[in-house]
Amino acid sequence: MAFDHRKYRPFTPIARPQRRWPDKVIERAPNWCAVDLRDGNQALVKPMTVAQKTRLFLLLVKVGFKEIEVGFPAASQPDFDFVRKLIEEDLVPEDVTIQVLTQAREELIARTYEALKGARRAVVHVYNSTSRVQREKVFRMDVAGIREIAVNGARSVARHAAQAPETEWIFQYSPESFTGTELEVAAEVVNAVIDVWQPHKGQPVIINLPATVEVSTPNVYADMVEWMNDNLHHREHIQISLHTHNDRGCGVAAAELGVMAGADRVEGTLMGNGERTGNMDIVTMAMNLYSQGVDPMLDFSNIREIAETVESVTEISTHPRHPYAGELVFTAFSGSHQDAIRKCLSTYQEGDVWEIAYLPIDPRDLGRRYEEVVRINSQSGKGGVLHVLERDFGITLPRWLQIEFSRVVQEQAEEQEGEVNGEQIHALFNKHYLATPAGWQLHAYELNRERDVVDARISIGGDGDDTTVLAAEGRGGVEALVEAIKRCTGQDIAVEGFDEFALNEGTDASAMACVRVRVGDEFSSAAAMADDTTSAALQAVLSAVGRVAAVRASLASVG
Amino acid sequence: MAFDHRKYRPFTPIARPQRRWPDKVIERAPNWCAVDLRDGNQALVKPMTVAQKTRLFLLLVKVGFKEIEVGFPAASQPDFDFVRKLIEEDLVPEDVTIQVLTQAREELIARTYEALKGARRAVVHVYNSTSRVQREKVFRMDVAGIREIAVNGARSVARHAAQAPETEWIFQYSPESFTGTELEVAAEVVNAVIDVWQPHKGQPVIINLPATVEVSTPNVYADMVEWMNDNLHHREHIQISLHTHNDRGCGVAAAELGVMAGADRVEGTLMGNGERTGNMDIVTMAMNLYSQGVDPMLDFSNIREIAETVESVTEISTHPRHPYAGELVFTAFSGSHQDAIRKCLSTYQEGDVWEIAYLPIDPRDLGRRYEEVVRINSQSGKGGVLHVLERDFGITLPRWLQIEFSRVVQEQAEEQEGEVNGEQIHALFNKHYLATPAGWQLHAYELNRERDVVDARISIGGDGDDTTVLAAEGRGGVEALVEAIKRCTGQDIAVEGFDEFALNEGTDASAMACVRVRVGDEFSSAAAMADDTTSAALQAVLSAVGRVAAVRASLASVG
Repeated sequence: MAFDHRKYRPFTPIARPQRRWPDKVIERAPNWCAVDLRDGNQALVKPMTVAQKTRLFLLLVKVGFKEIEVGFPAASQPDFDFVRKLIEEDLVPEDVTIQVLTQAREELIARTYEALKGARRAVVHVYNSTSRVQREKVFRMDVAGIREIAVNGARSVARHAAQAPETEWIFQYSPESFTGTELEVAAEVVNAVIDVWQPHKGQPVIINLPATVEVSTPNVYADMVEWMNDNLHHREHIQISLHTHNDRGCGVAAAELGVMAGADRVEGTLMGNGERTGNMDIVTMAMNLYSQGVDPMLDFSNIREIAETVESVTEISTHPRHPYAGELVFTAFSGSHQDAIRKCLSTYQEGDVWEIAYLPIDPRDLGRRYEEVVRINSQSGKGGVLHVLERDFGITLPRWLQIEFSRVVQEQAEEQEGEVNGEQIHALFNKHYLATPAGWQLHAYELNRERDVVDARISIGGDGDDTTVLAAEGRGGVEALVEAIKRCTGQDIAVEGFDEFALNEGTDASAMACVRVRVGDEFSSAAAMADDTTSAALQAVLSAVGRVAAVRASLASVG
Repeated sequence: MAFDHRKYRPFTPIARPQRRWPDKVIERAPNWCAVDLRDGNQALVKPMTVAQKTRLFLLLVKVGFKEIEVGFPAASQPDFDFVRKLIEEDLVPEDVTIQVLTQAREELIARTYEALKGARRAVVHVYNSTSRVQREKVFRMDVAGIREIAVNGARSVARHAAQAPETEWIFQYSPESFTGTELEVAAEVVNAVIDVWQPHKGQPVIINLPATVEVSTPNVYADMVEWMNDNLHHREHIQISLHTHNDRGCGVAAAELGVMAGADRVEGTLMGNGERTGNMDIVTMAMNLYSQGVDPMLDFSNIREIAETVESVTEISTHPRHPYAGELVFTAFSGSHQDAIRKCLSTYQEGDVWEIAYLPIDPRDLGRRYEEVVRINSQSGKGGVLHVLERDFGITLPRWLQIEFSRVVQEQAEEQEGEVNGEQIHALFNKHYLATPAGWQLHAYELNRERDVVDARISIGGDGDDTTVLAAEGRGGVEALVEAIKRCTGQDIAVEGFDEFALNEGTDASAMACVRVRVGDEFSSAAAMADDTTSAALQAVLSAVGRVAAVRASLASVG
């Protein structure tokens, strides 16, 4: 079984000297038709039960679909039963139209109308295969034979509809395997069907152009759609519909370029479930429009519920990188991405135009949380760590401490070879900076301010009753405290960094101080929170100094 | 948190009255660069260990990549260590070039060259962000400032390279967030870098145009690439590279249209792992080329091993609908698809051009099996059942039995609400047709042919020694046997269907007969296998008749 490309032939491109679609922009949503219950269902290892179909149907209605293909009733008893249930239990809202698929064969069409009996409104979607390969190898018929199947099917559809005038009928025809069909052949067959149905005399008609198999780059599909758009009878009286599959991973692109090429309507499924590589994913295409300021006419504000329902009925998990819906698609681990996101979000206000680096849309629009956006592992930098501390704990850090602390977090990430979550980051911050070294707890202080000099009396306590009182003068509490410690210990101590922050509401304390001290050649940082800024500052100094072994040793010998 | 599209602004399309790319077809593979070990790694919850990186690197080499981005050594210690390992343990084949990423900052560039010391050949890939949002909100710089960062970076890259002439250096520059950058700005910055590097004087230069975030339909990206292609200095001396992401689900489409627009090179990852929605999937794009008869220059003949390795190092499962690699992407459950596949495959011969309905490529090219193609559930029809029996058990059925048996299988599928596998189908066939009813086992027969009349003496046996001998005349064994049973039982018996088939080699028997009889108003079918056609035929008749309760009753009363 050689890996040899030479047994394949390239798709012949379409010469379109006057192509127009590349200059178009999609400015309104196409008419959507969800085919989850038919094409999606046909592709499952375990097809849906009637109960599952009902659940998915109700979800599709809730999302806002106005056309829903509900099955292939002539080919499957469960599909037949489901259509009957929808009609008999009156589950189809007034503004929603159900659609059913049938091959262009008399007995199947008859059975299809049986299934639809009593429907308020329905799309009867009839198809036959038109591609060269299917004509030659499967049906062994010429174009005239294939056209006759289509025309006979179209006539049968019209005849049965005429016999059930209580239902509002919409006719849809698909030249199945359109992408494998020569354009002239497709137009000949489709126009013959249009001529039977006479859309210009009032019959609503949809012509669906399926990329049953995706066989070319998406621009070629757009060329084909534009060519059909220019060559169909009564174009202004019909809807052109697209139905793309994803064999080349370009199902969404093909549908988008196809709409630019003139299509009015798009068939697809939630999360792209469907035959083989799946159908066009309507979540992705609709959200692509949304991200450009176009009303998608569908509501995906609770994407998790939608994905979970689809997962439940299809038994297929959502890929973590599925556009808009996957677990990881709004997450940045990389430090530079995190930093950019943090900076952009910091100035973003509700109501602004959304312009955030690395986030094409606001995750909250889909019911997702900013907590998912910045996650920390060994690839992350200070921006991300800072973002998590600010976002989850209301803690802001001075720049010198950001750099120092992000190294602490990165080491932890490298050590555990994985993600460090918010709680862990908080714990690391506590352990390395906030925790008070034993014996260095501030108990009380008195500050007497006279002529810019503070007279500080500070008592700190050991494990038990062992309390040391430090007293000194300085131009502020911190300076006085450092002086006192220097005096007690005989060590060379200097404050190298000092910052105070008001804490956000919702935290226990109201102020945080961060201090970096030098003791001889050694550096030490600490932070402290308190209800007043002075307590926070003094405790931060005590914690920073108390972390240095040399100081502890000197004090012990003094004490 | 309203679901409201109005906070987003549409991407401004590119006016290109003379665009050329839509008329192009990709006729040869671009130069591929795998960025799994850098971009892919940066996006993982749990970044790869050095051991995992090594394993993936060796896979990439085996698949045939000639350029592999191996990390961001200045930003990550494990990446630095991995680059050193590759160089020091001489793991990079002669014809493979490693590439590393660095921001355009002096200290990072210096560290990058430190990591690359002693490399035979390397691409130094330097970047800075150029988009409007990044300039305004993240860097708070004008275009001149951003250009200066790029130019300084380019100079530093060149300077460090000059100091290490033992390595063959290739320079690469990315205007990061290119898709968010005004084209004039992108060209200004990129051309400034090109002017520093002077590719026309012999320095190999790659200009990479990242869709860091996918922000428009893929045709707009192609327009942007074509515009850059037309506006870069020394175009004929540089390679234009693409690097697309999949935020709108169109990363592959964008890369394909971008290559049509003039790019020489494409960066991507296996299975599309990468930031957020992932990078462009090289498996898909390469196999898309392959399916058009273009040599992809990469070998995916063992897609399972590739997918499994990627799954193992990324801890992300392959989606069952992932193009070319997913479990379900070659599978047809629908009856009409199965029938078409069966008909197309039945005339396909090794060496033919591949033209099989619903299968854009031959699954065997990827090391996959035809067994995966047709799988049976309640959506399947006779074509599929027939295909499985033929493929897995060498059993062919006559048309009348196909229809009857496919109903049996469909009922089973509906009952168990899921897939019916080949073994189950075989068991159903045995139970319903092949199994001999108790007491109706053919023991021996004698046929005497005289004047077109067969004189048959047939002994059948009950559970024990109870053997009945039937004797009758007829124009053949079957006719004689039926006559004999009619005589014994007094029942009205007629053969309604009769077919014999030679069995394929590898089965125990050499012939199979299928018989459908009518007994009064009742119909019964059976099949039998034997070493000779007469035995098979006679046993099939006995089995069919013996399944009818009325016959058994009559015979018992006779016996």
